[in-house]
Amino acid sequence: MKQPLRIAVTGAAGAISYTILFKIAAGELLGKDQPVILQLLEIPPAMKALNGVVMELIDCAFPLVAGISTHDNPEDGFKDVDVAFLIGARPRGPGMERADLLKENAKIFSGQGKALNNFASRQVRVLVVGNPANTNALIAGRNAPDLDPRQFTAMTRLDHNRAVGILANHLSAAPTDVENVIIWGNHSPTQYPDLHKATVKDLPALAQVDRTWYENDYIPTVAKRGAAIIDARGASSAASAAQAAIDHMRDWMLGSGGKVVSMAVPSDGSYGIASGVIYSYPVVCADGDYRVLQGVPVSDFSRGKMAETNHELVDERGAIVDLLPAETEVKFNAVSHPTA
Amino acid sequence: MKQPLRIAVTGAAGAISYTILFKIAAGELLGKDQPVILQLLEIPPAMKALNGVVMELIDCAFPLVAGISTHDNPEDGFKDVDVAFLIGARPRGPGMERADLLKENAKIFSGQGKALNNFASRQVRVLVVGNPANTNALIAGRNAPDLDPRQFTAMTRLDHNRAVGILANHLSAAPTDVENVIIWGNHSPTQYPDLHKATVKDLPALAQVDRTWYENDYIPTVAKRGAAIIDARGASSAASAAQAAIDHMRDWMLGSGGKVVSMAVPSDGSYGIASGVIYSYPVVCADGDYRVLQGVPVSDFSRGKMAETNHELVDERGAIVDLLPAETEVKFNAVSHPTA
Repeated sequence: MKQPLRIAVTGAAGAISYTILFKIAAGELLGKDQPVILQLLEIPPAMKALNGVVMELIDCAFPLVAGISTHDNPEDGFKDVDVAFLIGARPRGPGMERADLLKENAKIFSGQGKALNNFASRQVRVLVVGNPANTNALIAGRNAPDLDPRQFTAMTRLDHNRAVGILANHLSAAPTDVENVIIWGNHSPTQYPDLHKATVKDLPALAQVDRTWYENDYIPTVAKRGAAIIDARGASSAASAAQAAIDHMRDWMLGSGGKVVSMAVPSDGSYGIASGVIYSYPVVCADGDYRVLQGVPVSDFSRGKMAETNHELVDERGAIVDLLPAETEVKFNAVSHPTA
Repeated sequence: MKQPLRIAVTGAAGAISYTILFKIAAGELLGKDQPVILQLLEIPPAMKALNGVVMELIDCAFPLVAGISTHDNPEDGFKDVDVAFLIGARPRGPGMERADLLKENAKIFSGQGKALNNFASRQVRVLVVGNPANTNALIAGRNAPDLDPRQFTAMTRLDHNRAVGILANHLSAAPTDVENVIIWGNHSPTQYPDLHKATVKDLPALAQVDRTWYENDYIPTVAKRGAAIIDARGASSAASAAQAAIDHMRDWMLGSGGKVVSMAVPSDGSYGIASGVIYSYPVVCADGDYRVLQGVPVSDFSRGKMAETNHELVDERGAIVDLLPAETEVKFNAVSHPTA
């Protein structure tokens, strides 16, 4: 049996965690031969509910779960972790401005970044799910100067999976028939689901759909899918978010099998995007690492969309710039590749 | 690629389904090479919420999902299904007596039994999760005279997994160290978690725990675990119930690998239990079938507990006897074994 890997999950008593924990514990993240130790973080008022979740994890008698611990602080919770799902975030309260939301979360994620910097495994992989995810990931990464910024990513895989699923459904195709869909930019309504490179059954996707449908129906449907699900279910899209988080981290660690997927990662300036912001790019994952796909043709339409979502991310960074430590070093050529 | 199997789930917009559907769709029930068609049933007021769940299933772009349909009636919903998870049930309302609860559910499950009888695959495997699960399974099976009663089972795997997990946790052992735990009887507080045959690390479990702890702490803790989780989480134990339902059905279809698990199945009178009631026994699953373990030694203590839960099941049957069709034929020696 392999040595257990340590998986931290924040917001562990929340709705997304209620799905993802039972998937990780069942081996859906790392396979049926990889034991895991779950390190669960919550804020103090949620510790009682978290204990209920732990009872249920025990009650499943999962063969792969080698340990479970609960923590109300990131210093203990992130001790030696190999993987961190940062799911908990401060939601927008009544009357709260977007700038306030960014700042409140900046405080949380700067603390988590520092704790990861000081206590996590040097190979830790971090996925931020809690919104505003991209800028939260930026803050966490910038507060972890001893780690490679590339170890901090944000989730646009939910948008990516939605873009694949909705396109497949529209064309009565299987999701596996769809390839090379790209989500560019921010996990927000400015995100850009790009079908210019996409194929369905090996033929160009845009040749199989109406251009008006693509621009006026598909793009806003993907971008606003979360609100549509809240309207239908009366609750947020927790299960599909959890599945997307599994997909993101599994591909990062075990490879995407040559497939293009979307991950929000620190921009190195590729495609004219502001350097340093956490921007969703097309990536291919292999050998425990991800590589931004270069040379994707960018139409004028795409360029406008990609710039708009870039602009939003630069604005978000501006709103919390006084909470960002100085950028001391660019490490994009660092030799340390986190590997499984 | 294999032919898709058709999986029906009732109560598909509810909390247990919100976990189980995303596990079935990800291949956790039948493996990563078995496509599935999901046939989702709900009552009309829940169809909007169910549509939200379907959106999320689409949004996961699951490679194994070959189709999804929604139904507000069992005749359409159970058409050609190979597997049926009967999760939806009428909960006990304010001022409702237990007899009323049994009768209200008897109506639902007699209709579902008839629809399975008339429209499902002849090899359909049925797992009743909705409470009172054992008697609901009895009603469904008795209303399906063209199917083998043995195709109708109820879930005590959650109790079984709880019994394993809580014992392992108490002894600081791994769940995989625990074998031959047995749940006898009803999925209710009268259930009997029997450790007389159980081993932990190949040594007798009861030699490793205090007898007083076993009788006065462990047995009621397992039996009342659901209430403890509601108290902690403020919500029912949906995720662990979903995992147990996956475990029950996967073992039934793919085998339990020689391991003893607990399933509530039609009693053939074994161990002095009333013939016909759906009673939880120790079983071993192989070749797509289950076999009740015979010859388990029964202590006086065990005999009393097994009789008490048997008595409750006979009482439950009595409360709805006028809604049960006459038993026309005992089919325990039927040659048709449902196989995968």
